[in-house]
Amino acid sequence: MVWVDIVALLAVAQLAFFSMLVGAARTRTRVQAPATTGHPEFERYYRVQMNTLELVPALLVGLYLSAKYWSPAWAAGLGAVYLLGRFVYLAGYVKDPARRGPGFGLSFGPISVLVVGALVSIARGLLHG
Amino acid sequence: MVWVDIVALLAVAQLAFFSMLVGAARTRTRVQAPATTGHPEFERYYRVQMNTLELVPALLVGLYLSAKYWSPAWAAGLGAVYLLGRFVYLAGYVKDPARRGPGFGLSFGPISVLVVGALVSIARGLLHG
Amino acid sequence: MVWVDIVALLAVAQLAFFSMLVGAARTRTRVQAPATTGHPEFERYYRVQMNTLELVPALLVGLYLSAKYWSPAWAAGLGAVYLLGRFVYLAGYVKDPARRGPGFGLSFGPISVLVVGALVSIARGLLHG
Repeated sequence: MVWVDIVALLAVAQLAFFSMLVGAARTRTRVQAPATTGHPEFERYYRVQMNTLELVPALLVGLYLSAKYWSPAWAAGLGAVYLLGRFVYLAGYVKDPARRGPGFGLSFGPISVLVVGALVSIARGLLHG
Repeated sequence: MVWVDIVALLAVAQLAFFSMLVGAARTRTRVQAPATTGHPEFERYYRVQMNTLELVPALLVGLYLSAKYWSPAWAAGLGAVYLLGRFVYLAGYVKDPARRGPGFGLSFGPISVLVVGALVSIARGLLHG
Repeated sequence: MVWVDIVALLAVAQLAFFSMLVGAARTRTRVQAPATTGHPEFERYYRVQMNTLELVPALLVGLYLSAKYWSPAWAAGLGAVYLLGRFVYLAGYVKDPARRGPGFGLSFGPISVLVVGALVSIARGLLHG
């Protein structure tokens, strides 16, 4: 279970790191708060952060409930793939928003497996008592 | 408690489904990433997703802590109302942003009861030891 | 542990309160949904809410895992500093976005300590068995 906790901590640390990249891009591109548009480079970093924020609740719920009902090892492993996938997403998006697909798949994919895996395990448990 | 876990999983699955609707609206309305404005239809789907994202932390914390301190059955039941309320919110908002009120109430309401219910149960426990 | 749960509930209640301030600012400044730009006052409240939403996952994960691996008392205490810091952030940002720094530090700081504290405690546990 400790590996599941490590993945959860690294996922929120990664999100905080992406926020810092947004802050740095804000300074560099002189997009003044409260604006979140006005320079394409800033907007790319901002969308990376927002898209990651959109995924974090599903990652955390999927992670802990698949660990509880299915397998802590699978949960932690899929969580590690998610962490990697988010870095691929960042690298692709910042280069060109049209290249955000692979990194998105590599992070949305493991989350889907975690959430569906937990639901299927729960359903099996309810059926077979 | 298993019903509380099922509600949590369905809530993040619903959020992921709303993200997919945003993705589909992006393709349909040709709003190119990283933009999140530029077409009213896209903006409606995007706001449905963002508003749901804004509520999910309160839902999850309220759900689990009202299950812990108050009642798992009430927690799961109110969580089910939230899930329904979010679909009503989606249907209303996409038709006309001015019609987002009832769905908002039907999802913000149960969250408020969950969070206040947990706080009141904790306060009672601390007072009556 | 009950104090950790109280902090978690207050953190999501605070986020919901910030959402209500956004709703009130929307009415006052007549920024019609789905727009989230168009009036500087509205945009300030909206950014306060969004920035808080960006921090909540790290707060919650850091709070519970530092309580588990490090110290529930430190976790609850740092969480209380975060809650205060967010009100300072709100007050500063609404007056002038350039004054958002101190409140940001007072809320991002405790979260960093929680997340790093949990990771260090886990690392110590793994090393010293």
